Amino acid sequence: MTIIITAFERSPDGGKGLARDTRVRWALEETGQPYEVRLVSIDALKEPAHLALNPFGQIPTYEDGDLALFETGAIVLHIAGRHAGLLPDDANARARAITWMFAALSTIEPPILELANATLLEGDKPWSGERLPLVRDRVRARLGPLSSRLGGADWLDGAFSAGDLMMVSVLLRLKPSGLLGEFPALAAYVGRGEARPAYRRAFEAQRALYATIHREPRP
Amino acid sequence: MTIIITAFERSPDGGKGLARDTRVRWALEETGQPYEVRLVSIDALKEPAHLALNPFGQIPTYEDGDLALFETGAIVLHIAGRHAGLLPDDANARARAITWMFAALSTIEPPILELANATLLEGDKPWSGERLPLVRDRVRARLGPLSSRLGGADWLDGAFSAGDLMMVSVLLRLKPSGLLGEFPALAAYVGRGEARPAYRRAFEAQRALYATIHREPRP
Repeated sequence: MTIIITAFERSPDGGKGLARDTRVRWALEETGQPYEVRLVSIDALKEPAHLALNPFGQIPTYEDGDLALFETGAIVLHIAGRHAGLLPDDANARARAITWMFAALSTIEPPILELANATLLEGDKPWSGERLPLVRDRVRARLGPLSSRLGGADWLDGAFSAGDLMMVSVLLRLKPSGLLGEFPALAAYVGRGEARPAYRRAFEAQRALYATIHREPRP
Repeated sequence: MTIIITAFERSPDGGKGLARDTRVRWALEETGQPYEVRLVSIDALKEPAHLALNPFGQIPTYEDGDLALFETGAIVLHIAGRHAGLLPDDANARARAITWMFAALSTIEPPILELANATLLEGDKPWSGERLPLVRDRVRARLGPLSSRLGGADWLDGAFSAGDLMMVSVLLRLKPSGLLGEFPALAAYVGRGEARPAYRRAFEAQRALYATIHREPRP
């Protein structure tokens, strides 16, 4: 059965890899699973066919035979649970790797999303200048402890895992903010993630797609 | 081996059950697992002994023999994976239930946390009055599709699951906002969650604890 994921028809970030399909592509590449991509237009995201796959009208979705999933975390965990390469065999180590997946999504990403909202949705508001430093401090308050825990290690808990895949993916969103540079251990950690051949393949697949599409003349 | 979880020594919400240990207590009650609670003071949260369990200095943590976990989502998933009562047996249905856990934490909770920050951390800021409606709209933008998907069903995907446990727990945070009342299907859904005997036991356990502690004279 062919795995089919969805991605934006046109990349909001011009192929910088920040759309969440990159996380799923990366997991599929780490585990050596072939997949196909179905592109969805912004309008089609809110149509019944796509809402049946993802009630919140977002990408990515994941289809494999009669199984349809949404939520990047759930998709990556599903892939990691079925194929070797993203979770350790030892049951306790496995539970700890999954813990880091949740830490990425529940503890680290929310303040990063708040910062994205502050910049993208409220950048033109009169309070933006005074408020942004507060929001940036909330991100720092999470990056500090994360950096301390990582210390000098390559990955968060032993070998590279789905927890690192998700954490690196979440931290990548901080690149435009400059905040990552304040935590050299985390910047190096993200660099190690980006240097993985599976990440490179995932990144290039989405970049090449949008490079082609965006070169087409618009109507 | 006895399961040990951590909770706040003094409840920030006076025993209303919004601290995240309630989610773990609920999962343990649904699966019939006995547990002990170790209380942690606000100061102790930032000390090395607790940071070894949770690098972000938060509760709850989970210890079972030589396994130590943090992140409520990871703990609930671990409990649900080891004991009957929170995940269906069918593999596809199981993956979908886990999807709802992630949807609760990654899609629904972030705008709710942003609203909590706007109220608790920025309620006294000059922009609060103008900004709050924007943040409330971001929450509505997630509650609308969730309510549509739930429709007239009791639970999100068949029988009650860990996905519902997490979704109800996240939605409970909205009670003070009044937003839940705008989505009667979701308000009824939360009511069904709160009416479950396992939730009642979890809620009462934390309420009784803080009722006792808070009656003690403070130094």
